[in-house]
Amino acid sequence: MDRALGIDIGGTKIACGLVHPDGTVDEVATIPTAGTGQAVVDQVVALVDDYRSRHAPTAVGLVVPGGVDPRTGIVTAAANLDWTDLDLAAALRLPPSVTVHVDNDADAAAWAEHRFGGHPRGDSLVLITVGTGIGGGIVVDDRVVRGATGAGGEIGHLPLVPAGRPCECGSRGCWEQYASGRALHRAAQAAGWPTGHAALREALRGTTSATEVVTEITTHLVHGITILTAVLDPAQVLLGGGLGTDPAFQHFVHTAAAATKPTKPRAQVPIRPATLGTHAGVIGAADLARTATPRRGDRGARRGGSRGGR
Amino acid sequence: MDRALGIDIGGTKIACGLVHPDGTVDEVATIPTAGTGQAVVDQVVALVDDYRSRHAPTAVGLVVPGGVDPRTGIVTAAANLDWTDLDLAAALRLPPSVTVHVDNDADAAAWAEHRFGGHPRGDSLVLITVGTGIGGGIVVDDRVVRGATGAGGEIGHLPLVPAGRPCECGSRGCWEQYASGRALHRAAQAAGWPTGHAALREALRGTTSATEVVTEITTHLVHGITILTAVLDPAQVLLGGGLGTDPAFQHFVHTAAAATKPTKPRAQVPIRPATLGTHAGVIGAADLARTATPRRGDRGARRGGSRGGR
Repeated sequence: MDRALGIDIGGTKIACGLVHPDGTVDEVATIPTAGTGQAVVDQVVALVDDYRSRHAPTAVGLVVPGGVDPRTGIVTAAANLDWTDLDLAAALRLPPSVTVHVDNDADAAAWAEHRFGGHPRGDSLVLITVGTGIGGGIVVDDRVVRGATGAGGEIGHLPLVPAGRPCECGSRGCWEQYASGRALHRAAQAAGWPTGHAALREALRGTTSATEVVTEITTHLVHGITILTAVLDPAQVLLGGGLGTDPAFQHFVHTAAAATKPTKPRAQVPIRPATLGTHAGVIGAADLARTATPRRGDRGARRGGSRGGR
Repeated sequence: MDRALGIDIGGTKIACGLVHPDGTVDEVATIPTAGTGQAVVDQVVALVDDYRSRHAPTAVGLVVPGGVDPRTGIVTAAANLDWTDLDLAAALRLPPSVTVHVDNDADAAAWAEHRFGGHPRGDSLVLITVGTGIGGGIVVDDRVVRGATGAGGEIGHLPLVPAGRPCECGSRGCWEQYASGRALHRAAQAAGWPTGHAALREALRGTTSATEVVTEITTHLVHGITILTAVLDPAQVLLGGGLGTDPAFQHFVHTAAAATKPTKPRAQVPIRPATLGTHAGVIGAADLARTATPRRGDRGARRGGSRGGR
């Protein structure tokens, strides 16, 4: 059976599963991440060996919350895991017959939504993952936009406001400081609501002060979406993540979008919910390992044979 | 000899030439545009017939300052030419043996710079054409980003400043209202200099008030470049256009870029001058006609045979 193993390595948990060519997934497991550094590498190696002892995946895809060099597949920096310049594919020591692919988690999720999300057909999309922060992935012309240094689609750090709020990244005015779950939480507390979700709930009931809080956030979100649309003219924009897929939040995003004048060259872009939920990373990882075009100069890294072989 | 005919149709002039596979161009001609509407269509038809009577181009590429439907190759809107929903390829009535390709002028220029500009190798770039306004084209993964509706790379209308200066496009705060030749001219006049170039010249001499004017513009330009870098992580950014290729202006752009903190995922992107000058559109048009991957669902439109042939 042509199933590929997908592993989504996060800072708090690791999700994995066997993914069929149609994007369905089984043998799903989620386990807590074993700390950082080499401990997580060992954990992933054991996880892959365990799956391989019970199944025979033809390909293994691994995704991480961090930078992956698009030419080599090496994890350049994944802060949550304390990984720097890690050749994860080589660490797995898989036989040449198993294809290994390493990628960024948000890029893989965008790819999964593109391939299997059930969205209206189009060869491009932007996935905006609105959770605590903002992440994202971009598909153009049926290909993931990885960027020259692996930072393509890192839209959360798009400089929305010049000299704006300081960001953990060291820069200022990043989009995620204005339109993320954390930004909503902060604005809600400043207005007297205990949490962002409380403000959202009250806004749905029509409470003016809560609506103002939510509208401030969704307006900033739509500003970023308008920028992305002007640059890329994608067939659609998908909202993923805990806050992004919240129907109440989506309602206010659509309200803010309707209040925004589209720029000349492009009518309003369709904004839709992502559909694959927390499995998007696993599905995308596996599918990229099985089907994606090898990346430039990266054929060796993607094949277990040349790096991970005996 | 495998030469393709490139025609760059502008609102004031039409440039054309025969382009070799290596990007060199000969038989170049530039003629004034014959008004608008059908008159220009007739002019282009006559121009193509004239070249064909003397040479035998294997392919004909035509580019326009406006929207081209990426699926059909139909010019959806070119305001300067008063063209709407025009099937230019069909109007040429070329035999099936001649490939016809219709595209956006800035996209073609970006493609030409990517292929023949002599820039350091990379599979992606953003060309920012800074003239009276701001135009642009994007190449990702060795392909032009045309967008779902043909508006990909229309970066001049990126909403830089929410609720900012009104733009001709009907929106507000568009990038070109803050960082174009017109914006520089306006700021220069407000500060007492007759033209933008006069302010630029004085700034080079170290005059503080002129330097402030220029720095305001280049800072806005760099803000947009930082946005594009966060989204796309291109291998390089090229500055084209009359102002964009001015060495004095480039000097101040580099100064502004050096003063900008790069965002976390990406170090500063290289900013370089475009090199092909006014021929970029002609070269790109011809090369796209000869070599580019046919666009999705657009094979028929690109071949004169199915639309323009007998």
